[in-house]
Amino acid sequence: MSSSERADLGRALCVITGASRGFGRTTAIEMSRLVKPGSVLVLVARSADDLRSLQAELAESDAGKAGLLVKCVVADLAQMEGPESVVSASKEVFSEDLDHIILVNNAASLGDVSRFAKSFTNMAEVDSYLSFNVSSSLCLTASILQAFPQRPGLQRTVINVTSLCALKPFCSWVLYCTGKAAREMMFRVLAEEEPDLRVLNYSPGPLDTDMQLVARSRTGDPSLRKTFSDMFTGGRLLTCEASCVKLMKLLLEDTYTSGAHVDVFDL
Amino acid sequence: MSSSERADLGRALCVITGASRGFGRTTAIEMSRLVKPGSVLVLVARSADDLRSLQAELAESDAGKAGLLVKCVVADLAQMEGPESVVSASKEVFSEDLDHIILVNNAASLGDVSRFAKSFTNMAEVDSYLSFNVSSSLCLTASILQAFPQRPGLQRTVINVTSLCALKPFCSWVLYCTGKAAREMMFRVLAEEEPDLRVLNYSPGPLDTDMQLVARSRTGDPSLRKTFSDMFTGGRLLTCEASCVKLMKLLLEDTYTSGAHVDVFDL
Repeated sequence: MSSSERADLGRALCVITGASRGFGRTTAIEMSRLVKPGSVLVLVARSADDLRSLQAELAESDAGKAGLLVKCVVADLAQMEGPESVVSASKEVFSEDLDHIILVNNAASLGDVSRFAKSFTNMAEVDSYLSFNVSSSLCLTASILQAFPQRPGLQRTVINVTSLCALKPFCSWVLYCTGKAAREMMFRVLAEEEPDLRVLNYSPGPLDTDMQLVARSRTGDPSLRKTFSDMFTGGRLLTCEASCVKLMKLLLEDTYTSGAHVDVFDL
Repeated sequence: MSSSERADLGRALCVITGASRGFGRTTAIEMSRLVKPGSVLVLVARSADDLRSLQAELAESDAGKAGLLVKCVVADLAQMEGPESVVSASKEVFSEDLDHIILVNNAASLGDVSRFAKSFTNMAEVDSYLSFNVSSSLCLTASILQAFPQRPGLQRTVINVTSLCALKPFCSWVLYCTGKAAREMMFRVLAEEEPDLRVLNYSPGPLDTDMQLVARSRTGDPSLRKTFSDMFTGGRLLTCEASCVKLMKLLLEDTYTSGAHVDVFDL
């Protein structure tokens, strides 16, 4: 631990979307270990079963036994009611003695990576992708910031789980690249507008998740598909844990430039 | 004219969105002067009156008298039927002796620049913005590429009218920055995927248009509003004509890297 690093994330309210699987699930577990007693996790996902199982696991953990409150919100963020139900649940569990609000915008979908840009003639498909991956993330973030306004003694941190795809075009990944570029710019604007806020665009790297399985089996571009496949067979995918530990270190050090894109491989 | 520059844009089918006003209107006029006889312009906008007036002006021009065909498509690109009606109209006027398809994705809206990101809690508002500014542009481009596939002797060029806002965050411009970043990435992916295609992300600079009037009067961030105001009073806005001439030069030279962001001030 560096001398400037804080020891914990405070008495925090952590809202994590896409918390039932992959990187979101690992983030929930890692955060539960770094928050002070009296903290609350609000876990959001579409799958009730997966959320309950994570909730049960957390209840058995040291943090759970020490009284960590875990609230599950089964919601579809592509629907108008999604962000609203997350905010309602967060307000319910909030208490005035919390000193840190952490929102992790992790939920995302890959889109159909088997097809090339010229095949996307259906507006409803693109609209629906952007609604889930971009609009809901802006509206949830805005709603959380309004629900928990700036006040002395309260730190507010917003994390966007981004990707190299926000910066670099990848063949047959038009929806994913477009959505990630949009989202990252959105959070860069937010960082400019709200100097009291800490905004982090964290790119977790190629993770050994279900999404990567789809990437290496379904990617339309043969060369990119082979790259993903080679990363898998060559053992070059990161575990969610390894990447998440680096994210936690960033949060504890708290020295990143607000709004910056920070890649796991830069750390 | 440099020695490598072509003298004209060929016998072209030019599809221009947002053609009734501002940069789109100027692009229609400039292109009409640079295409060969027998070419066709398909002009798309929501306002029938403004389109008819441009059509009348073009009919009186030298190009019009020489037989340039101008087809108006009154369409709302935010609606599913918008891109479809543009493609139908383009197919109607296409003839086999055309040797260049040029699609100018110019239509865009500013979004509400009087408010900051944290105020965007309404998903329908954000969805609608992204549908018009991002989805429609992808779906129209995809549909045009499918309608006019690659064949020997046919050049295909897709232009995206982009902005500095695609690269740099501006306070109180969250929708515009997000939409432009999304769109630019989309066209970068397209350029990677379709090596036969010429894709240009052209940033026309701060133009003396109705959009700039809104920018300097409505921008929520006082410092940015002053910047726009100072650019206007200091005479530092570009005319659409001056910027469009540079775009035409890029197209005639045809040496830009496909997918690249080219700013008017780089030229």
